[in-house]
Amino acid sequence: MKRYLVLLVLFVAQLNFLMAAGIDRVEPMFWWVGMKNPNLQLMIHGENIGASMPEISYPGVTIESVTRVENPNYLFVDLQIAKDAQPGSFAIVFKTGKKQTGEFKYELKTREPHSSERKGFNSSDVIYLITPDRFANGNPGNDAVEGMKEQPSRADKDGRHGGDLQGIVDHLDYIQDLGFTAVWLNPVLENNMTKTSYHGYSTTDFYKVDPRYGSNDEYLELSKDLKKRGMKLIMDMIFNHCGSEHWWMDDMPMHDWINNYPNWKVTSHRRTVNQDPHASEADKKAMSDGWFVESMPDLNQRNPFMATYLIQNSIWWIEYVGLDGIRQDTWPYPDKHMMADWTKRVLEEYPNFNIVGEEWSMNPATVSYWQKGKVNSDGYECYLPSLMDFPLQNAASRAMNHAEDFDYGMIELYEALSNDYQYSDAGNLVVFPDNHDMSRFYTQVGEDVNKLKLGVAYFLTTRGIPQIYYGTEVLMSNKGTEDHGVIRSDYPGGWDGDAVNAFTGEGLTDAQKDMQNYVRTIQHWRKDKEVIHNGRLIHFVPEDGVYVYFRTNDEETVMVILNKNMQEKQVKTDRFSEVMGGFTTGKDIITATNLTDLLTIAVPAESAMIIELK
Amino acid sequence: MKRYLVLLVLFVAQLNFLMAAGIDRVEPMFWWVGMKNPNLQLMIHGENIGASMPEISYPGVTIESVTRVENPNYLFVDLQIAKDAQPGSFAIVFKTGKKQTGEFKYELKTREPHSSERKGFNSSDVIYLITPDRFANGNPGNDAVEGMKEQPSRADKDGRHGGDLQGIVDHLDYIQDLGFTAVWLNPVLENNMTKTSYHGYSTTDFYKVDPRYGSNDEYLELSKDLKKRGMKLIMDMIFNHCGSEHWWMDDMPMHDWINNYPNWKVTSHRRTVNQDPHASEADKKAMSDGWFVESMPDLNQRNPFMATYLIQNSIWWIEYVGLDGIRQDTWPYPDKHMMADWTKRVLEEYPNFNIVGEEWSMNPATVSYWQKGKVNSDGYECYLPSLMDFPLQNAASRAMNHAEDFDYGMIELYEALSNDYQYSDAGNLVVFPDNHDMSRFYTQVGEDVNKLKLGVAYFLTTRGIPQIYYGTEVLMSNKGTEDHGVIRSDYPGGWDGDAVNAFTGEGLTDAQKDMQNYVRTIQHWRKDKEVIHNGRLIHFVPEDGVYVYFRTNDEETVMVILNKNMQEKQVKTDRFSEVMGGFTTGKDIITATNLTDLLTIAVPAESAMIIELK
Repeated sequence: MKRYLVLLVLFVAQLNFLMAAGIDRVEPMFWWVGMKNPNLQLMIHGENIGASMPEISYPGVTIESVTRVENPNYLFVDLQIAKDAQPGSFAIVFKTGKKQTGEFKYELKTREPHSSERKGFNSSDVIYLITPDRFANGNPGNDAVEGMKEQPSRADKDGRHGGDLQGIVDHLDYIQDLGFTAVWLNPVLENNMTKTSYHGYSTTDFYKVDPRYGSNDEYLELSKDLKKRGMKLIMDMIFNHCGSEHWWMDDMPMHDWINNYPNWKVTSHRRTVNQDPHASEADKKAMSDGWFVESMPDLNQRNPFMATYLIQNSIWWIEYVGLDGIRQDTWPYPDKHMMADWTKRVLEEYPNFNIVGEEWSMNPATVSYWQKGKVNSDGYECYLPSLMDFPLQNAASRAMNHAEDFDYGMIELYEALSNDYQYSDAGNLVVFPDNHDMSRFYTQVGEDVNKLKLGVAYFLTTRGIPQIYYGTEVLMSNKGTEDHGVIRSDYPGGWDGDAVNAFTGEGLTDAQKDMQNYVRTIQHWRKDKEVIHNGRLIHFVPEDGVYVYFRTNDEETVMVILNKNMQEKQVKTDRFSEVMGGFTTGKDIITATNLTDLLTIAVPAESAMIIELK
Repeated sequence: MKRYLVLLVLFVAQLNFLMAAGIDRVEPMFWWVGMKNPNLQLMIHGENIGASMPEISYPGVTIESVTRVENPNYLFVDLQIAKDAQPGSFAIVFKTGKKQTGEFKYELKTREPHSSERKGFNSSDVIYLITPDRFANGNPGNDAVEGMKEQPSRADKDGRHGGDLQGIVDHLDYIQDLGFTAVWLNPVLENNMTKTSYHGYSTTDFYKVDPRYGSNDEYLELSKDLKKRGMKLIMDMIFNHCGSEHWWMDDMPMHDWINNYPNWKVTSHRRTVNQDPHASEADKKAMSDGWFVESMPDLNQRNPFMATYLIQNSIWWIEYVGLDGIRQDTWPYPDKHMMADWTKRVLEEYPNFNIVGEEWSMNPATVSYWQKGKVNSDGYECYLPSLMDFPLQNAASRAMNHAEDFDYGMIELYEALSNDYQYSDAGNLVVFPDNHDMSRFYTQVGEDVNKLKLGVAYFLTTRGIPQIYYGTEVLMSNKGTEDHGVIRSDYPGGWDGDAVNAFTGEGLTDAQKDMQNYVRTIQHWRKDKEVIHNGRLIHFVPEDGVYVYFRTNDEETVMVILNKNMQEKQVKTDRFSEVMGGFTTGKDIITATNLTDLLTIAVPAESAMIIELK
C-alpha cells in the first residue's frame, strides 16, 4: 500500500511540472530567488524542443540566451534572476514561429533564512558514514519498486538489501547517543542499474533520490530531523561519471557530453598526471577521459553545459535539502579546472560550507595540492576545503601492524603527521580508520579489539574531522575477505527479525557492548572539547611502542598516550616537560580515573589513555 | 725528500703568520678587499690573548668591536673593511695596558677578476665524485706525514691508502676525456683522527688541507688546472660537526661551542622535525644537537661566533681556491636558521654560485623544503640552490630491480619525477646513480652491466645535474657487502704497480672498456646539448617495461627510450605524436645509427636509446 502511495505522489509531482507535451525534463526543476549568482541555466529535454523559442514574463527574470545544440531534443536557456526578483511561479512558454507549442510552470522559491551562511561540518564533528542500503530497512515497502531494474535480494552480498532513509531516521536517537554529530551517506541518488546498484555510485538521475531509499521529500525530512538535533548532513556526490543506465545515455545533447563515447576506454588511473609538470597530454587524457569502469560513463566536465549542469545540481541539493557538506567522489578523475571552478562557485554561494574530496593517494603532496589556500608551483588554485586523509589512514594501519623498529611501527603514525606542513589546513582534513572501500579497520588490525580501540582513540583525538564507518562500534569485520559486499554488511538490528540488534543491545557480545561504550564515551567527551577540535597538537617521537601527543590551547591541555605493547608500560614524563610543566594531576576520560602523580604514568597493555591535565 | 720539502714550506708559512708569541691562530688567516660584505670577524687564539686589546692602523680598516669570551685564550675581533680599502698588509698590534704584548701581520688580498660573478656548477655539467684517498696516489711522499695520528695502511679497507690531490691532477686528462666537466671531492680538509680518517668527514682544521692529500697551495693548483680546462671544482663542507681531534676540542672558546658537551648524545636522526609543525622542542633539540657519531662533536651553529666562523670559512675557500660550488654534508642536522643565513650570505657574495645539500630523504616534500624559492607554509626561507636527489636515486634503483607491475618497476621512476612540482627548481637538483655512502649502482642492480647502463643513460638525460661516482665507468662494485671501505675501493691504476690500469686501459676487461666508452660517448654528446641541460622534459607512462621521455626546446628534440626487458621491444610511437609530430628520422647517439622510420622503433633488450629527432 505504502508503495502505491509513494508512486502516486511522484505522479502528481510530475503532473505539476510537466505542463507541455514534448517537455519531459527541465533541470534544475526549480530554483530560488536571492542567490548571490544571478545566473541560472536550464537544461530542457523534450522531443524536438530545440525547434521552439522560450518566452518568460515575470518581473526580474530575463532570458539572456538560448542555445540549440546538436541534438534537437535539448535546449539550454540562460536566465538572469534580478536581485529584487520575488519568489513565485511563472510559465515558460515555448513557441514555434508564432504558435505556442508548449508551456512549463517554473518556480522560484524562498531560501531558508541564513542559507548562505550555513556552517559546514568541521573539526567539532564526528561523522558517521552509512551505506544506506545496508544500515536499516525502515520501509520494507520500498524494497522493490516498479521500474527499477534491480530488485531486492538480501541473500546476495552484492544485491540490494532494502536499507533506506527511513531506516536512518528511525535510528537517529541511537546515532546521536553514540556521540556522532554528522552523517555522511553513500550516494542516495537514483541508481537504476541492472546489478550491483546498492553502492550508489552509478547515478542515473542527478535530481532524484533512489526510490528504494525513499523520495526527495524523505531526504529533506531526514535533513530536518538531523538539524533539530544539532546534527549535520553530508551528501556524497559524483561528478566524474554517471551510471550507464542514466536516462541521457539514450539521447545525449552533444557528442562530447561523455568522454570516449561510444567506444569506451578505462581510465589509466595514473592520478599523478594532475600534478606532474612533465606529464604528456596523452597521459592526462588517458587519466581524465577514461571511464572508471564500463558501467560508469565518464562525464566531460570540459563541456561548459555539463559543467554548469553539475555545479547547479550541487547547489540545488545544498539549498533544497539544506546540506551541511559534500563528499566528492574520485576527486582526481574529473577535469581539474572545472573542479576548481565548482569549489569556487559553491564557496562563493556558501562561504562557510565544507566539501571533502576523495584523493586516494598516500602522498600528502598529492592530496594537499587540491586544498584551498595551497600555493602550487603550477599556479593551480582549487577551493576544496577538505580532503580525505588517506595517508594518515594508511599510516595508522601500518603503525598497528608493523613490529616496532627505527622506521616501522608507531613512528609511521608520527612521521605521517610530520607531513602536515604540506597542507594549507591539516586541521580540516577528514580522518578515518576505514571507509566503505577498504577492509574494516578491525580486520586491518587482525580482529584485535584493543588495536581497534587504539586506532579509534587516535582518530578521535588527532587533528582533523573524524569519520567512523557504521558498524565499527559493534566490531563489524570482513575477516578473510576484501569483498566490498562483505565489508558493507547489514547492520545488526536494521532488519525485522535480525537475531542481533545493535540498537537495543539484544544479542550483542560483551566485547561489542564495550566497544559501543568506548566510542560513546570518547565522542561525548569530545563534543565540547575545543582543545581537541582546534587546539595545537604537539607530539613526541614514539619510544618503545609508546606514542605520546598533546592537544593544547589557552584554556586546557589534553595528553594522549598510545601504548601498543602487549605489556603495561611505565611512561616517564620528564621528556614532555615543555607541555606538562605546571600540571600536577590528571583525569583519564576513558576510565574516568584520576591521576595524582604525573611523573610516571602506568599505561595498560594495548591501550590509549586520554588525560585531561589539571 | 718531497715530504720534507712540503713540511719546510708549511713551516715558513707559519713563521710568516705568527709574529707574536702567544698568538697561535688568527682565522681567517687572510681576507680580501672588495667583498660585498664589509664585515670580517677574526677569531684569535693564543694564551691569555683575551687580556689584550688589538689595534690596527690601516686606511679603510677599523675595529668595530672586540669580544672577550669565557676562555681567555680567545678574542673575537670585528673589523669593518671600507669599500675603498686597498690590498696590502698591516699589523694587528695587541696591547695589555700600554704595553705591546703581541703583533700579527694580516693581509688583505686582491680578489680574482669577476670573482663575485662566478657561475656555479649547473645542468650543463656532469660531476665526477672522487674519494681522494682512493683515486690515485700521485705523491707517495705524503702518504705518511709526521704529526698525523693515522699512518697509511693500504691493506686496511678502512685505512688511509695514499690517494691525494696530485693523483687527481695527474689524471685530469683522463677525467676530462671521459666527458666530465666538474669534480666533487669528498672532504680534503685535515682529518687528524686516530682511525678511519680517510673519508674526510671529521675535520680537525677548517683552514687546512690534510697534508696527506697535499697543501692548500696544491688544492689551489688543482683548481687552476681545472679552470684552464673549463672544468669546475666543488668542495665538500661539513658545518654540522668537526672531528673529535679538532684542535679546539682541547681549548674551547665557550661552553656552548659544541652541543651536548662534554656528555655527548647521539642525534635522534629524526630529520623530519625540521618541517613538522607538531614537533616538540625536545625532539628538535634531540635531532639538531645530538652528535652524528661519537667521533664527530656537534657544532652549535646557534652560537653566533660559531655561525660567523663557518660562514667566513666557506667564503674564504670560495675566494681562495676559486670554488665553483659547495656540497654541504648532513644538511638537516645543523641549526636550520643558521643554514638559511649561510646560504643567503654566500649568494649575496656570489649570486650565481651553486651549493648542493645532502638531505637523505625519500620524501620530495622534505627535500624541496630547503630549496631556494620554495614557499613553505611555516615561512622558512632557505637559499640553498640545489639538493641531492635521493628520491630519484632510490626510484631508479627500485625501477631496475622490481618486476613490472601497476605500481612497481619503471613506473616508480616515472612517479618519482611526477613529484617535481614540489621543487622550486627541479632542474637544479643533483641526480646520481650512487655515491660514496651507498652500494654502487652496479651492485644495486645485481652486477648487470646493461641495467647499470640504463641507469647511467637515465641520469645523463633526465633533468638535473648528473653526478657519477669514480669507478662507475670501470664497473667497480661491492658485491656481497655494503662495507663503506669496499664501496670506496682504490681506483685501478691509481697506484704504482697496480695490475689493472683504468687510465691506460691496461688489464681492463672488454666490458669495462665498453662501459668507459658508453659513459664517454654520452657525456661528450651531452656537453653542448642545451636541450638536455635545460630543455623541457615530457614523459609517458611506462608500458610493458619501456619508459619513453623527451627533452625538447625551440631548437631540438631528443627522445630517450629505456627498455628494461630481457627481449627486444618494438615500440610503436603513435602514442607520442604530440612531441614527435613533424619528425621523420632520428639518430641514436649511443650507437651512431640513423633511424629512417620512426613509426616503430626496435629497441634492443635491456638498453637505452637516445635519439636526436630530425
